[in-house]
Amino acid sequence: MKPLNIGLIGYGFMGRAHSNAYRKVNNFFDLEYQPVLKAICARNAENAAAFAKKWGYESVETDWRKLIARDDIDAIDICTPNNSHAEIAIAAAKAGKIILCEKPLSMNGPEGLKMVQAVEKAKVPNIVWYNYRRVPAVTMAKKLIEEGRLGKIFHYRAKFLQDWTISPDLPQGGAALWRLDVKAAGSGVTGDLLAHCIDTALWLNGSMDSVSAMTETFIKERKHTLTGKKQKVGIDDACAFLARFKNGSLATFESTRYARGHKALYTFEINGEHASIAWDLHDLHRLQYFDHKDEGKLRAWRSIHVTDHGGDHPYMDKWWVPGLQIGYEHSFIHQVADFLAGLAKGKPVGPTFRDALETQYVCDAVLKSARTKKWEKVKQ
Amino acid sequence: MKPLNIGLIGYGFMGRAHSNAYRKVNNFFDLEYQPVLKAICARNAENAAAFAKKWGYESVETDWRKLIARDDIDAIDICTPNNSHAEIAIAAAKAGKIILCEKPLSMNGPEGLKMVQAVEKAKVPNIVWYNYRRVPAVTMAKKLIEEGRLGKIFHYRAKFLQDWTISPDLPQGGAALWRLDVKAAGSGVTGDLLAHCIDTALWLNGSMDSVSAMTETFIKERKHTLTGKKQKVGIDDACAFLARFKNGSLATFESTRYARGHKALYTFEINGEHASIAWDLHDLHRLQYFDHKDEGKLRAWRSIHVTDHGGDHPYMDKWWVPGLQIGYEHSFIHQVADFLAGLAKGKPVGPTFRDALETQYVCDAVLKSARTKKWEKVKQ
Amino acid sequence: MKPLNIGLIGYGFMGRAHSNAYRKVNNFFDLEYQPVLKAICARNAENAAAFAKKWGYESVETDWRKLIARDDIDAIDICTPNNSHAEIAIAAAKAGKIILCEKPLSMNGPEGLKMVQAVEKAKVPNIVWYNYRRVPAVTMAKKLIEEGRLGKIFHYRAKFLQDWTISPDLPQGGAALWRLDVKAAGSGVTGDLLAHCIDTALWLNGSMDSVSAMTETFIKERKHTLTGKKQKVGIDDACAFLARFKNGSLATFESTRYARGHKALYTFEINGEHASIAWDLHDLHRLQYFDHKDEGKLRAWRSIHVTDHGGDHPYMDKWWVPGLQIGYEHSFIHQVADFLAGLAKGKPVGPTFRDALETQYVCDAVLKSARTKKWEKVKQ
Amino acid sequence: MKPLNIGLIGYGFMGRAHSNAYRKVNNFFDLEYQPVLKAICARNAENAAAFAKKWGYESVETDWRKLIARDDIDAIDICTPNNSHAEIAIAAAKAGKIILCEKPLSMNGPEGLKMVQAVEKAKVPNIVWYNYRRVPAVTMAKKLIEEGRLGKIFHYRAKFLQDWTISPDLPQGGAALWRLDVKAAGSGVTGDLLAHCIDTALWLNGSMDSVSAMTETFIKERKHTLTGKKQKVGIDDACAFLARFKNGSLATFESTRYARGHKALYTFEINGEHASIAWDLHDLHRLQYFDHKDEGKLRAWRSIHVTDHGGDHPYMDKWWVPGLQIGYEHSFIHQVADFLAGLAKGKPVGPTFRDALETQYVCDAVLKSARTKKWEKVKQ
Repeated sequence: MKPLNIGLIGYGFMGRAHSNAYRKVNNFFDLEYQPVLKAICARNAENAAAFAKKWGYESVETDWRKLIARDDIDAIDICTPNNSHAEIAIAAAKAGKIILCEKPLSMNGPEGLKMVQAVEKAKVPNIVWYNYRRVPAVTMAKKLIEEGRLGKIFHYRAKFLQDWTISPDLPQGGAALWRLDVKAAGSGVTGDLLAHCIDTALWLNGSMDSVSAMTETFIKERKHTLTGKKQKVGIDDACAFLARFKNGSLATFESTRYARGHKALYTFEINGEHASIAWDLHDLHRLQYFDHKDEGKLRAWRSIHVTDHGGDHPYMDKWWVPGLQIGYEHSFIHQVADFLAGLAKGKPVGPTFRDALETQYVCDAVLKSARTKKWEKVKQ
Repeated sequence: MKPLNIGLIGYGFMGRAHSNAYRKVNNFFDLEYQPVLKAICARNAENAAAFAKKWGYESVETDWRKLIARDDIDAIDICTPNNSHAEIAIAAAKAGKIILCEKPLSMNGPEGLKMVQAVEKAKVPNIVWYNYRRVPAVTMAKKLIEEGRLGKIFHYRAKFLQDWTISPDLPQGGAALWRLDVKAAGSGVTGDLLAHCIDTALWLNGSMDSVSAMTETFIKERKHTLTGKKQKVGIDDACAFLARFKNGSLATFESTRYARGHKALYTFEINGEHASIAWDLHDLHRLQYFDHKDEGKLRAWRSIHVTDHGGDHPYMDKWWVPGLQIGYEHSFIHQVADFLAGLAKGKPVGPTFRDALETQYVCDAVLKSARTKKWEKVKQ
Repeated sequence: MKPLNIGLIGYGFMGRAHSNAYRKVNNFFDLEYQPVLKAICARNAENAAAFAKKWGYESVETDWRKLIARDDIDAIDICTPNNSHAEIAIAAAKAGKIILCEKPLSMNGPEGLKMVQAVEKAKVPNIVWYNYRRVPAVTMAKKLIEEGRLGKIFHYRAKFLQDWTISPDLPQGGAALWRLDVKAAGSGVTGDLLAHCIDTALWLNGSMDSVSAMTETFIKERKHTLTGKKQKVGIDDACAFLARFKNGSLATFESTRYARGHKALYTFEINGEHASIAWDLHDLHRLQYFDHKDEGKLRAWRSIHVTDHGGDHPYMDKWWVPGLQIGYEHSFIHQVADFLAGLAKGKPVGPTFRDALETQYVCDAVLKSARTKKWEKVKQ
Repeated sequence: MKPLNIGLIGYGFMGRAHSNAYRKVNNFFDLEYQPVLKAICARNAENAAAFAKKWGYESVETDWRKLIARDDIDAIDICTPNNSHAEIAIAAAKAGKIILCEKPLSMNGPEGLKMVQAVEKAKVPNIVWYNYRRVPAVTMAKKLIEEGRLGKIFHYRAKFLQDWTISPDLPQGGAALWRLDVKAAGSGVTGDLLAHCIDTALWLNGSMDSVSAMTETFIKERKHTLTGKKQKVGIDDACAFLARFKNGSLATFESTRYARGHKALYTFEINGEHASIAWDLHDLHRLQYFDHKDEGKLRAWRSIHVTDHGGDHPYMDKWWVPGLQIGYEHSFIHQVADFLAGLAKGKPVGPTFRDALETQYVCDAVLKSARTKKWEKVKQ
């Protein structure tokens, strides 16, 4: 097996999810490449060292530029807040590194475009961690659509509901809460959560034409962790938008962190001429499917327990036995497996930076529409 | 339309359910016969008169013998406690009346046999109110089985769970609580709840060969409503039994009034070689169905919303529009509709007294097994 | 009991639902008034006579003006297509009749305003058949909100999904399909289905400030039943809109007749500071409830089986025993019961014509926004 | 961190599940011990070497006696068919090794007793892989019971339903299908599946007093993989039993491999005086809970998404963020974590061999009752 030396930047929630994926992938998938946890990079040397010990990273860096400069690093994995993705990725591309970048790709479309140009010029393999594409139920949804089972699509609807920022006492900013700080995050739920919904939607349903959006910031001021002062909240706490896809279908999207009872309820539903599909992240191992071609009296929503084997249910032959579910973390393992397989074949594996740029353009149009209160075209 | 003059005995819960069915059936079904609410009979004249007024009964009787003696009564509907079914039914049969009797048919098998002999000798149409057969989802289960979709049956399991007698302060006996008084009820959950499960099971899965049962009375003494004194509780609070059906399938049955969280959770599931079926009374308008013949990756339990039209979903073309559910009371309306249609054709409609006798024999075997602690054969 | 003589106009789906409610209400509710099925009115005399026989109407009229002119009629129930509501209602008001009008109130806001002025001038009791308010689970949602359990509301979302017009072979117009003919219906899903969602939303969440909508007509031409020719389809097949309520909450609404797998899936969800509520029409006897005040580890969505007694679950003490569900038709019975109780007390019972006018104004804003592609204020 | 050198015997399904647990546990749990994958032992040297490479085992053995003889092995993990557990475990105990043994402990009670005596005499830490105790939802069920929330227990019911042996063409015996060969497995579903149900039940509900069972072998003969000949099937394809627990509660248990539609549907439900609990393996990250102490109108089954943090939901603070589910494999990781923590404290962690012996005694009584057709006492 060929080693693929990983240099990971950032050791937060995503740093753990990716490290776990690198460590496990070869136990379950037969691959030419094997990730090697070469270096972890973070500004806080002590924390980085602790993380390295816990996960088996061979070395620690505190300056990402040094990491990129190292010859023994093949791939840079960017797990930092959104506002540093572009600078790191462009430098890594120039250094000829393979890049795996956390989502969203960038703070906005124009910044994302520069990143795309950098990786395409450097011809380095690149991917963005829109991991939900590789939940087996979601991958199967893609296959069912590709097989033409749904026919013409009439409707797409997606939501991503959370409830963790309802308290006005929650501060913004800092290592733990940078997602509430518009300078670090670029936006609120739009870039954090709707970006996931949009990536899946573009993948499953093609390009979007135009949107009409509204956003709201329910808590107007929060103490900033770094300054200790109350500061205006710049992010969108909630965002909902209408959309028209190029295939003629109508869509609704919504995300919020103010929906009591929902921790990470990403849901989507697609209604086609012949069949419909629905999925939700709280029971991610199930796919709901309705097929009008079924015999009349037996027509119904099927709750498919996506754990079967024999090549039928995506990825599941690699895991346990039918009936035994896998979880959230496995979507990252699948992404690494597919990425490594693509590397071996010299083929790009999506979502590439270019794929992810399209999501940025939708986010830009959404945020613009929320300001202009008009329908906005999505840049192509 | 021909009138069918009804004489109802008893005005409790079942008196209401039946009266509602008689009043509504011709609004929704095209039938030759129309029930006429001719007389209500009950010992308490005042209560009977109030009931008559509420439901539109033309007259009141306080002695069921007088009711039976009336020439203007075509059919006797028995809604009294179990210990009076036999006497009334046998007298009504002798008087040549059509009989609709509440379940369970009788206090036990031998008593039930006399009732069967009486109606068969008198050649009077007769039926027992095992209403759950005519919940559309249950009727559809029967059809799916008859169509051979399940293939050889391996397993049958049924439960009827309630939670209303957990408090030791609840008394026994009297008009409201005769179900707790063994003298009026004959048994506890076995005759009250398991009888429903058994009736459905015999209908769907054929005859039972033998059983092994256990019963328990959790609260040993309760105040008796009539005497005001603490008396031994003679009924079974809970009963579970194993069974072997003649078709070779294995079964488990259970009922209790001590299952917190369940008000009237009658459930059954049948596993066949090719397909499985499940249903529960708390969502009675749905049928769960799994068909192994479905394409591999799409194989799943279907939650059929049994509300569709066009002859597909039993009885539903008589009601509203697809998607709009009906409820518990409709099972009685369907039974009346079928019974009246059978009357017009001169054909018996099940469950007849003879059908219901088989349920009594199973109950007898169950209660005997609980005493002997051995497997007991079911009388045929 | 005082009789309330009903004159029903129209014998379609709603004519049956209302007739059933009038016939049953006094069997289950203790009321001063008792509806009497005095006359059914429809242009087709033969059909009207058949309906009268089936439901027990004492007489038949073929001209609604004659019906209104009759002294023995106390209340006019309007079950005709939308384009005749105003003329009939205004005439009935002038004649001093009580009016029960099917929803939507009118073809549009201005027409609805005239109807409101007519009934208010005539001081006649009036109500609109937005029946879903009186599904017990929905009524309970209202009570939970009124008790302050949800706190400040952040989000409201509602959908009404059907799938019955996907086939391009379905014609428009005529007695059965007037809902597809814009001249008879005024609009498509907006007036037919979203009107229900809007009525409930205004009731539960207060007035709406502004909306941004999109509509689509997927099938552009359909044969007209009356002319036999292909004609342009004027209705909206699908409509989705964003809304801002006056209480600061954000909302999404959507309706379509092109959602495979959904027959009548009306759903709503409300997210408040402390608690959330969700409901859907396909399992109308359940209310989903999440309360953040619950102990941490036990916090969860509760699936409340709204069938309990003792005054706890609205209306349910009138029906069967706990655990036994009622259905769609009962919402109409509850509306009649409440209306008759209000009549006895001389108190208006909502939704009155004035309440329903607010829904028309929202519909007007929605349809206008779909045309202007801008946010539109809702007329107050 | 102290290394704990593991010698694993067997590389089948369980070999993978355990290896995964050893590799991951220290990434997520803070522990004094770290498992080291020292040696894999299996008769087929080539397969063992491939497994060693895939999972990072440092060495390979083909004779388990040699493995046990090695000084650099601290712990023996037994993942072989049931008929070799006793011999290996007793030898390992004599050699002073820590032992982790797959379930069921043994072929029967007497054999299990010898194993218990061996480990207790040798004073070696020992545990049996009844992994379901450590699914977070199941662990939480245990805590809720210990907190007294259920009160007196009335009912316990458990099932383990599969459907993978319905085809008569499936052979018995050999590496893949030893579970169908009575000589290797000892019994069918009783030892394989019911043993899980019984272990959980004894843990949650205390000791069992007596049982009445039935078993069935639906397919009487199957080709044997090793001999190539049709041979009598000696295992039980299905088993159901009634039980009485010492705490006075009544129970039903059932397992089969002939239940179409169920791949690994392990379910249990417990009804107590105050509250009820239910769980199923197909949605293992949820716990169903009903508490009668809840306010009347809000009383309902709660579907707890057991993914929350802060010490509330067992084990979940070690994983991702609230709302993101884990899967089947995590139960093994939790068992290793608990076992290693116990090792550090010098405290036994259940289920020990002694705990697992009690399950064997129940299985013995069940199989005996199926033969005698009588109630049988469980050996204590």
